[in-house]
Amino acid sequence: MSIYLDNSATTPLCKSAKKKMLDVLDNCWANPSSIHHLGVIAKDELDDARKIIASKIFCREDEVYFTSGGTESNNIAIFGAVEKLSRRGNKIITTAVEHPSVENPIKSLENKGFNVVRLPVGENGSINIQDLIREVDEKTILVSVMLVNNELGSINPVELIKKAVMMKKSPALIHCDAVQAFGKMPLKVEKLGVDLMSISSHKIHGPKGAGALYIRKGVNIVSPVYGGGQEKGVRSGTESMPALCGFGAAAEDLNNIEKTFENVKGLRDRLVKSLEQIDGVEINSKNENLPYIVNFSVMGIPSQPMINYLSEREIYVSGGSACAKGHRSGTLVAVGLSVDRIDSAIRVSLSRYNTEEEIDILCENIENALKELRKV
Amino acid sequence: MSIYLDNSATTPLCKSAKKKMLDVLDNCWANPSSIHHLGVIAKDELDDARKIIASKIFCREDEVYFTSGGTESNNIAIFGAVEKLSRRGNKIITTAVEHPSVENPIKSLENKGFNVVRLPVGENGSINIQDLIREVDEKTILVSVMLVNNELGSINPVELIKKAVMMKKSPALIHCDAVQAFGKMPLKVEKLGVDLMSISSHKIHGPKGAGALYIRKGVNIVSPVYGGGQEKGVRSGTESMPALCGFGAAAEDLNNIEKTFENVKGLRDRLVKSLEQIDGVEINSKNENLPYIVNFSVMGIPSQPMINYLSEREIYVSGGSACAKGHRSGTLVAVGLSVDRIDSAIRVSLSRYNTEEEIDILCENIENALKELRKV
Repeated sequence: MSIYLDNSATTPLCKSAKKKMLDVLDNCWANPSSIHHLGVIAKDELDDARKIIASKIFCREDEVYFTSGGTESNNIAIFGAVEKLSRRGNKIITTAVEHPSVENPIKSLENKGFNVVRLPVGENGSINIQDLIREVDEKTILVSVMLVNNELGSINPVELIKKAVMMKKSPALIHCDAVQAFGKMPLKVEKLGVDLMSISSHKIHGPKGAGALYIRKGVNIVSPVYGGGQEKGVRSGTESMPALCGFGAAAEDLNNIEKTFENVKGLRDRLVKSLEQIDGVEINSKNENLPYIVNFSVMGIPSQPMINYLSEREIYVSGGSACAKGHRSGTLVAVGLSVDRIDSAIRVSLSRYNTEEEIDILCENIENALKELRKV
Repeated sequence: MSIYLDNSATTPLCKSAKKKMLDVLDNCWANPSSIHHLGVIAKDELDDARKIIASKIFCREDEVYFTSGGTESNNIAIFGAVEKLSRRGNKIITTAVEHPSVENPIKSLENKGFNVVRLPVGENGSINIQDLIREVDEKTILVSVMLVNNELGSINPVELIKKAVMMKKSPALIHCDAVQAFGKMPLKVEKLGVDLMSISSHKIHGPKGAGALYIRKGVNIVSPVYGGGQEKGVRSGTESMPALCGFGAAAEDLNNIEKTFENVKGLRDRLVKSLEQIDGVEINSKNENLPYIVNFSVMGIPSQPMINYLSEREIYVSGGSACAKGHRSGTLVAVGLSVDRIDSAIRVSLSRYNTEEEIDILCENIENALKELRKV
């Protein structure tokens, strides 16, 4: 039996998402833009998925725009907001630890002359809201802050941003990359006070190739995607029916977010307790972080051989994020870890399907790895 | 038994694509960027799909970049080429009858100051290469011409563009939207002489949410999609495994393009012959067009009631393209049809699964519709 502990990279498909995808592939494959009957039923099916997503983030159905995934949601939000507001100012505020799908669009805007401020993060990986309040001004057009960091699980005080923006009379739109938060903690867009929020399907046991962008009613952006005008012009292109409807089904499965949170917290605590007993292991994630992600360093053993050692034993973990693909993690640099600690970092990311037994087997194998790999 | 004749809008999934998708959903759901074993097998599976696509357009494997579909391929090609070459000139040449996913990106560039020339089309819906030769110059940075028009099936002389570009010492990259051509006629990128070519999965009985952009080896573009750097930086975002692998399987099924072409041509000829015998039907597609698309007008009956009449009888056709969603077709205006003829236009688009019997039933029903709807 393999043990999958890389759920922040991607998750296995849940049964209900698979069932829905099969149904859609067989019975609902028409183009939702077609005006004949088959098109109408495809559109209805798509809107059912939209209703579910809306209910899970507590927004209106017409505030959910389907995309091909978290990266596209982030690109549309950032470029769309900046294009819309570029006459109002040229300052963009973000953090030093965003996912590349936020960091790189913003870097491209910086290269075009926008003034980008990257807020530093503390030891726990999250920003200090005072830094943000100091930076927001009347020339700020976009604030983009992730809710949960993908490498450490740190949680940012996103719900405090809106007040700062209003206090400073800033025209800024607030975007939040909530890809690692969705399905793992209660998420109410109004409470968060965001204008734009990105979520993804394949991090919640839905299929890859599906995501959504929440756009608050009344907020206008200029989408960088041009075409047939699907998703009210925000995301042109024939809707990816099986993936999007599978996304809806996976979201519908998120019934007990609080209960699952407690279970996963139990697993996290068990893991951390065991790791702390292993000589040479340093825990990089803080206790207040989202328990779904545990980052630690096995000092003296670089990430890659440890990942390989575990992979050979059918235990799957990651180093940095999957998207970093072996590059040194910017997040771990930003929180001030030593190079040695960064280079031996391991990320365990949990899901509702993981068990205590799996945690125990992981820890045994890390101990074994330490003995065997340190010899080499 | 329903009769689906809207294959240019989308196609039903073929068996082998479905089989592959199921296999990938169950056994190959990891993130291809993950460096553990599960990630490696996902990446291998994805590259198998890439090999198949490459073999079908006669290019190198490393010239195929996966996207979320034709619209994204077109957006990346157009914005990517123009961003790369904007210092060399500001002229863009395209046609008056492109799909919105080409026309609208180019229109957005026109709004930013680029000089856009839209070549007119003749009665058959295709450009005259002499017009293109006249327009291409040293300031032209992009030529984007579709291979097969999505409403009429007209075929453009794409293979003559390269010579024109070279003759005029133009730095232009040549992009071709081949979404309606791929799988329906032999397609060799070298013979076509294109630098960039867009294709889509769901027009060839593959799933929605998958497409590819061919980028000729040595050609550099600046992708407008930013993130984790997947697809060598051309299309960031976790790869949509089930859809892309299903795309590969659907492409593998394209074994007898010439033979299927002849069969479909037989169906087209049968359809046209029958339609010509119906009083008040005018054929808008020319005989030399791709036989997969037959556009005609049932004079006196607007498209919508005719589509509805047929849809109620489980026969599915379209008016303009699905993406036009009831707007008056720019293509039919461009070929000089009268407003009456445009407003009563019907598009029948065929696939390898259609039969003579289906064509006959369609024609009977059009005759019946004429009698019943004209009364109203």
